Amino acid sequence: MKRYILAAATMAAFGQVTYERLLKAPQEPGQWMTYSGSYQGWRHSPLSEINTSNVEKLKVAWVYQMPVTERIEATPLVADGVMYVSEPPSNVVALDAATGRPYWRYRRSLPEKINTCCGKVNRGVAVAGDRVFLGTVDAHLVALNAKTGAVLWDVKVADRMTGHSLTGAPLIVKDMVITGVAGGEYGVRGFLDAYDQKTGQRKWRFWTIPEPGQPGSETWSGDAWKQGGGPTWVTGSFDAEQNLIIWGTGNPSPDWNGDVRPGDNLYSDSAIALDADTGKLKWHFQFVPHDVHDWDAVQVPVLVDGEWQGRPRKLVYWAHRNGFFYVLDRTNGQFLLGKPFATQTWAEGMDPKGRPIRKPNIDPSPEGVYVWPGVQGATNWYSPSYNPKTQLFYVTAWENKGLYRKGAADYIPGNRYIGSVPEIDLAAEPGYGAIRAIQPKTGDRVWEYKVHTKPWSGVLTTAGNLLFGSTGGWIDREKTQMESYFFALDAENGREKWRINLGGTMASNPISFKAGGKQMIVMPSGGGIFAFSLP
Amino acid sequence: MKRYILAAATMAAFGQVTYERLLKAPQEPGQWMTYSGSYQGWRHSPLSEINTSNVEKLKVAWVYQMPVTERIEATPLVADGVMYVSEPPSNVVALDAATGRPYWRYRRSLPEKINTCCGKVNRGVAVAGDRVFLGTVDAHLVALNAKTGAVLWDVKVADRMTGHSLTGAPLIVKDMVITGVAGGEYGVRGFLDAYDQKTGQRKWRFWTIPEPGQPGSETWSGDAWKQGGGPTWVTGSFDAEQNLIIWGTGNPSPDWNGDVRPGDNLYSDSAIALDADTGKLKWHFQFVPHDVHDWDAVQVPVLVDGEWQGRPRKLVYWAHRNGFFYVLDRTNGQFLLGKPFATQTWAEGMDPKGRPIRKPNIDPSPEGVYVWPGVQGATNWYSPSYNPKTQLFYVTAWENKGLYRKGAADYIPGNRYIGSVPEIDLAAEPGYGAIRAIQPKTGDRVWEYKVHTKPWSGVLTTAGNLLFGSTGGWIDREKTQMESYFFALDAENGREKWRINLGGTMASNPISFKAGGKQMIVMPSGGGIFAFSLP
Repeated sequence: MKRYILAAATMAAFGQVTYERLLKAPQEPGQWMTYSGSYQGWRHSPLSEINTSNVEKLKVAWVYQMPVTERIEATPLVADGVMYVSEPPSNVVALDAATGRPYWRYRRSLPEKINTCCGKVNRGVAVAGDRVFLGTVDAHLVALNAKTGAVLWDVKVADRMTGHSLTGAPLIVKDMVITGVAGGEYGVRGFLDAYDQKTGQRKWRFWTIPEPGQPGSETWSGDAWKQGGGPTWVTGSFDAEQNLIIWGTGNPSPDWNGDVRPGDNLYSDSAIALDADTGKLKWHFQFVPHDVHDWDAVQVPVLVDGEWQGRPRKLVYWAHRNGFFYVLDRTNGQFLLGKPFATQTWAEGMDPKGRPIRKPNIDPSPEGVYVWPGVQGATNWYSPSYNPKTQLFYVTAWENKGLYRKGAADYIPGNRYIGSVPEIDLAAEPGYGAIRAIQPKTGDRVWEYKVHTKPWSGVLTTAGNLLFGSTGGWIDREKTQMESYFFALDAENGREKWRINLGGTMASNPISFKAGGKQMIVMPSGGGIFAFSLP
Repeated sequence: MKRYILAAATMAAFGQVTYERLLKAPQEPGQWMTYSGSYQGWRHSPLSEINTSNVEKLKVAWVYQMPVTERIEATPLVADGVMYVSEPPSNVVALDAATGRPYWRYRRSLPEKINTCCGKVNRGVAVAGDRVFLGTVDAHLVALNAKTGAVLWDVKVADRMTGHSLTGAPLIVKDMVITGVAGGEYGVRGFLDAYDQKTGQRKWRFWTIPEPGQPGSETWSGDAWKQGGGPTWVTGSFDAEQNLIIWGTGNPSPDWNGDVRPGDNLYSDSAIALDADTGKLKWHFQFVPHDVHDWDAVQVPVLVDGEWQGRPRKLVYWAHRNGFFYVLDRTNGQFLLGKPFATQTWAEGMDPKGRPIRKPNIDPSPEGVYVWPGVQGATNWYSPSYNPKTQLFYVTAWENKGLYRKGAADYIPGNRYIGSVPEIDLAAEPGYGAIRAIQPKTGDRVWEYKVHTKPWSGVLTTAGNLLFGSTGGWIDREKTQMESYFFALDAENGREKWRINLGGTMASNPISFKAGGKQMIVMPSGGGIFAFSLP
């Protein structure tokens, strides 16, 4: 058919994603140029063509399927009509965002031995200039030519043999690519790295676990810091005005046996704010001192210039895996609010500095202790959203308890170092999930939309007064199917406006952009990328 | 959400698919109860809710995804609101046909050693009474409880170690399950079997390769018949009035080296008509005597009571892998017409009995000989369609040549026995594909719709004056994506009315039925079953 050939010949012009464009991303609602849509971490689209009055007409515009059984955790990016999306484990495809037709694919040859805690996954790429950047499960950072997929450079970030892997989407800041690292279940020492976009040369590294003598090292004893964890596997945010990269860190290692690492274990389970040019720590806030429940702070920091108790203030909103919704001052990390957004049985509350007041008998034991939230948290890495119109914060929440068991903790490089029993009962209780809207001024719940499975996907809000989310949980695709609905809610009241059964696991985040002159919504499900538009 | 629980509780009543209902399938257009939709092999839906005037509004109603990377070749069945579809290699799922939500799954444990020529695939199940029947790649026939998926019986049909496998959908006739066998690339001796639906006991077997002394054995010499091929891996049709099962047989073994099997090699590459109660041969027509090009007659026989040269006659229409469209008399196998529907360079034409007049220098040689059509044929197992309104025959055709190479042919049980080089150059030429409408009275082409890839999927026609087909070729899903459009054409003139990019291989056949009060169209693509309806 002649039109196919024409379509290929007239493929969209590949643009230059400049730093300037990334800074002003909200002014280009037709694009989705960075993981959260903007540096502020809002996952909000200013597009309103699809809205509460017409969303029931939404239909599948195209599908792209990947030859994978691993779940897709990637957030696709869209720049100038081209979609860049990673395929698990560490591949990339460039698609025509209007039709789903592939332009090129990058396929990485991987060694057999890959240490990832929870699947050989990837959460997306970053785009800058004519380059696409990918972190790989064998702990490399790769730059690809955005027009061809050809490798421009490939640098080893860390040693895969000691349990390091790169699963998160990099973040572009100025002429740098910022990447975190995963491996909290292997006793890595976490860090955040900045690489030169052109050369792949490392510009700085911030170790999330300080070495003896450095500030924070007093929260460790002995050599525990060497395999102290604090990974950085979810993409952070950037405050350009303050020149601060704000990023979350994961659990200290080993996860469930804190005996081998007395102390608060800084900067695990923290929000860290780094000077973008030097990687120096400007402030930190530790959500869970001496965590023994695997409550990573690997959420996207949501940066809002809002009113706080009557005066304007630079804020961070943060719904944490530990069950609390936090508000921090973004200039200094000061704690302003900490209120449960889901059932939790581990803390009486917070002291004035935001340090949790722990209840007794919540620590893991050999026989196991039930605590809410469970091991996967009250939320996890999947993205929240902030809608500037409703001024509400939206999060996928889990209601479930977990059985926490303490076990031996012997560090053997490249082996799991979790300090528990080999088979953790992750699904001790079926529990349920919900999309919750939170009033960030108080932490109060405004509405919730319950789903009887526990969603493993984030939410998107749009100026069409919609919230997109899914029921699709985190499952082995080999096991029994869970509910697989992708849905749209009224962002003001949580009422369901539309849904479709996509039949596959949804373990990713929706996005929105314009292609072919239309607003599109995209959500990965199962082995496919599904694009929706109005007829 | 409460409605989920309600939906599960009110699951559609499971009906009884009686033989009576199968006989009158065209009178129940809301169902799709047997492989081709009816015993006549038409793959035609009498539904017209979706038609040329509204098909552009067609949208995805639901998706069901399978945890597989193997291609889906199954035709789903729908009976009383429940869809039964096999998942490769040998699993089954029952879905709510209106929503795609699964009721149950049967998962077969398979041995490691499976001999299939071309993927561990399955083309669908059969349904009768409260039973679902599945052929497996380890050469068993299994009966499942249609309500639960529980195994009722499981019989060994043949020895998997000698290259037998069951990949085709069984056919229900009276109280029997008819199943063929695959293994033409392993030197099996083909047969067609009938089993009692209740007990799994075999009622008869017809050997497609006769043993010495039987009629047809004069077309063999020596012991070649023992591994003579003639598999039966695509579902046939049934002429209830004549009590005849009409079925196609595959290539003689070894495929490309005929030296070891002089003679016509009956009943390979033939249409065979068997008495349904006894399995005795009533007539046969061999399309390719002494085939050395792998031109299986594994197409669905299309049974039409039509006019032939001015008088009514019981006919079979057959577009064959060898490039010719045939019309036979269904009462006796008499040859009436043989005319190319695609480029072929191997035959001058047909003699009055339908025996091809071969051109010189077309046989495989060690260095290779180019012949049209190529090794995958001018069409293959995917279904044609007959539309009683247009009275046209529709087929997915390939235009491509193949390089035919002869090699050694030593029979070693359980090993490939193809008589060629280990790596055949299947894709010697890219070629192209087309949907073609053929006037069966003359074999003339009425229209064609070209696609630049070679589709590996069949066609469906509907009373809405539509033909559904796809561009999606037969590919390793690991390789570069081919075009993946599912489309609707005007059945009268081939004009494209609608299409969608489903992003995955389409190697199956569309169906239509009613669910939730609406006409639906279903097509597998990639790892998903896609259901379409009007808004």
